Amino acid sequence: MVNNIPVEKAKTSKIHNVDFDNLAFGTTYTDHMLVSDFNDGEWSAPKIIPYQPVTLEPSSKIFHYGQSIFEGLKAYKDEQGSVWLFRPMENFKRLNKSAKRLAIPELPESHFIDGLTALLRLEQDWVPQNPGSSLYVRPFMFASGTGFHASPADKYKFIIALAPSGAYFSGKVKVLIEEKYSRAANGGVGYAKAGGNYAGQFYPTQLAAEKGYQQVIWTDDNNHEFIEEAGAMNVFVRINDTLITAPTNDRILDGITRKSILDIAKDEGIDTEVRKVSVKEVVDAAKNGSLKEMFGAGTAAVVSPIAAFGYKDVDYELPELGDSYASKLKKRITDIQYNRAEDKFGWRYKVV
Amino acid sequence: MVNNIPVEKAKTSKIHNVDFDNLAFGTTYTDHMLVSDFNDGEWSAPKIIPYQPVTLEPSSKIFHYGQSIFEGLKAYKDEQGSVWLFRPMENFKRLNKSAKRLAIPELPESHFIDGLTALLRLEQDWVPQNPGSSLYVRPFMFASGTGFHASPADKYKFIIALAPSGAYFSGKVKVLIEEKYSRAANGGVGYAKAGGNYAGQFYPTQLAAEKGYQQVIWTDDNNHEFIEEAGAMNVFVRINDTLITAPTNDRILDGITRKSILDIAKDEGIDTEVRKVSVKEVVDAAKNGSLKEMFGAGTAAVVSPIAAFGYKDVDYELPELGDSYASKLKKRITDIQYNRAEDKFGWRYKVV
Ligand SMILES: Cc1ncc(COP(=O)(O)O)c(C=O)c1O
Ligand SMILES: Cc1ncc(COP(=O)(O)O)c(C=O)c1O
Repeated sequence: MVNNIPVEKAKTSKIHNVDFDNLAFGTTYTDHMLVSDFNDGEWSAPKIIPYQPVTLEPSSKIFHYGQSIFEGLKAYKDEQGSVWLFRPMENFKRLNKSAKRLAIPELPESHFIDGLTALLRLEQDWVPQNPGSSLYVRPFMFASGTGFHASPADKYKFIIALAPSGAYFSGKVKVLIEEKYSRAANGGVGYAKAGGNYAGQFYPTQLAAEKGYQQVIWTDDNNHEFIEEAGAMNVFVRINDTLITAPTNDRILDGITRKSILDIAKDEGIDTEVRKVSVKEVVDAAKNGSLKEMFGAGTAAVVSPIAAFGYKDVDYELPELGDSYASKLKKRITDIQYNRAEDKFGWRYKVV
Repeated sequence: MVNNIPVEKAKTSKIHNVDFDNLAFGTTYTDHMLVSDFNDGEWSAPKIIPYQPVTLEPSSKIFHYGQSIFEGLKAYKDEQGSVWLFRPMENFKRLNKSAKRLAIPELPESHFIDGLTALLRLEQDWVPQNPGSSLYVRPFMFASGTGFHASPADKYKFIIALAPSGAYFSGKVKVLIEEKYSRAANGGVGYAKAGGNYAGQFYPTQLAAEKGYQQVIWTDDNNHEFIEEAGAMNVFVRINDTLITAPTNDRILDGITRKSILDIAKDEGIDTEVRKVSVKEVVDAAKNGSLKEMFGAGTAAVVSPIAAFGYKDVDYELPELGDSYASKLKKRITDIQYNRAEDKFGWRYKVV
């Protein structure tokens, strides 16, 4: 199957213009992309073509009704030059969960897995080997069909694009626990990787940035009482020696890093709890010194330690720990991802 | 200003291919469109060009992060052939309210009002004269800037496209009062005309359609206790002789038809109440016979009478009234829109 995917090769490669030692996140794209079109009730056989612009009618529903979803994963290169993915089937399953909620037709598994494998084999020289770097993989789907009637489109496009990338964040972040704005509704689309979920976060995040916070920690939209997740990360809280994260629900993305971290933590003998975490509990723990760590977990940043959080105009600093859970868990997950350690969970997927 | 907008004329017109007696809603587009690009911190001077496809990088943020908003209004032709808009400044103000919430740069007023006026003058032959028909006007804005980082784009596109259209709905509709899914969060983007708000409604609306309902009536996401609005309409309920609609808030779109209907109803001497309407109140009123009417109100459908609603697996039929508020109010508002009656509120805006 992987070998059956037709390839139209780019005439020239851009790879020699790229400074692999100074990669930003997701701003440089490789020479090729994978495409499939949904038309007349089915997804066309995927093909690989030169990375190129997309041409759409002004009445395409993507411009009007927000029918768009995406995924994000990474390809890692080990010391021997082999290329690996981390739990790609989880991304595939989540893509289709998102598709269903956004009334976008689900994609066949082979379009995703075989298509991505074929694309990565072709682009393997683009997978960086520098520490912390990887090839970010962005599968996405959107409504290309037309019409100003607010109803699902009859045509869609699926694309996988690749971006060699450095680390997402650098350093520790200061976050704001949100008291006014929300990311997702009960019964809404928060659990889907729908484009609209991200656009809605930008303005509150800008307001937080003006006050000196790099990220917002979203809370439930009823009473802003419970901690949910960050912009593109799930959130973990360590109180004394227990690592706690909120259960996923229809407002929270079921992060692959989150569930991997939970498995690794258990394997490390760390006490874990998956339960609602109230803002009050976190503030009280910060006050009485039992709050040891908070960190975000997501594909882009992997594990992102939180240095301080703001709530109701007060900033709470977190302690600097010598051997934090964050650094221990980050090391274990990235060692698996980059094939530097045993993969006892069976998470790695060899591309080439 | 209106005359200063440069026009690149289409080589040929498509107007002779159009059957103006059988227009669907928003599927035929005129020969030209207005465009302006946000670049280097400002919106370029608008220009009119032939209606044509848009070309975008695969990494354009519209495909990934849902930064898109739109407006919807109509141009009406009167018996003398003059063309009118209805309260266009309200659409302009709402566009910028939406822009702000979605972290999209606000548009200068003249780009909208003068741009639209110039475009409509050029396309005036496209405004249909058949009863109930009009030229649907679709201003929209989206992120054209690129990057896989989840942050606002640095480039945007504003377009106004026009679609000669027949009536949106025909006949009375059966609606489902939603008990599980939601349209908007407290502190979210429900009050904005953001693309993502619509995509999120498609799946629940499909589920309702499978049960025989054409529309969903959204309720609050906390307890599904209060009636909010329909897919692209605000909702009015008549109990005995009082006309009631929910107050707008950050979950509900501030509909221009809604507020015009409220003003007209008051002018007609109808008792109006703007207050929360619980589902229980509506069900009880249906049971005891005091529920006389329910209707949706929005630009596309104007006033759309509801024949029946479903709630918790029970259908409630509404009575057929000889002279309903819905028909009286629809007549008054459309008489103003089509310049068939005095415009005591000063709502009409003459284009040509
Ligand atoms: C809203 C949100 N939460 C959490 C995550 C983390 O998910 P994952 O670990 O699968 O990358 C993401 C995606 O990166 C996200 O967009
Ligand atoms: C969600 C929603 N509610 C209500 C309305 C009605 O607003 P207006 O009367 O301004 O068209 C619309 C737009 O048409 C809408 O999209």
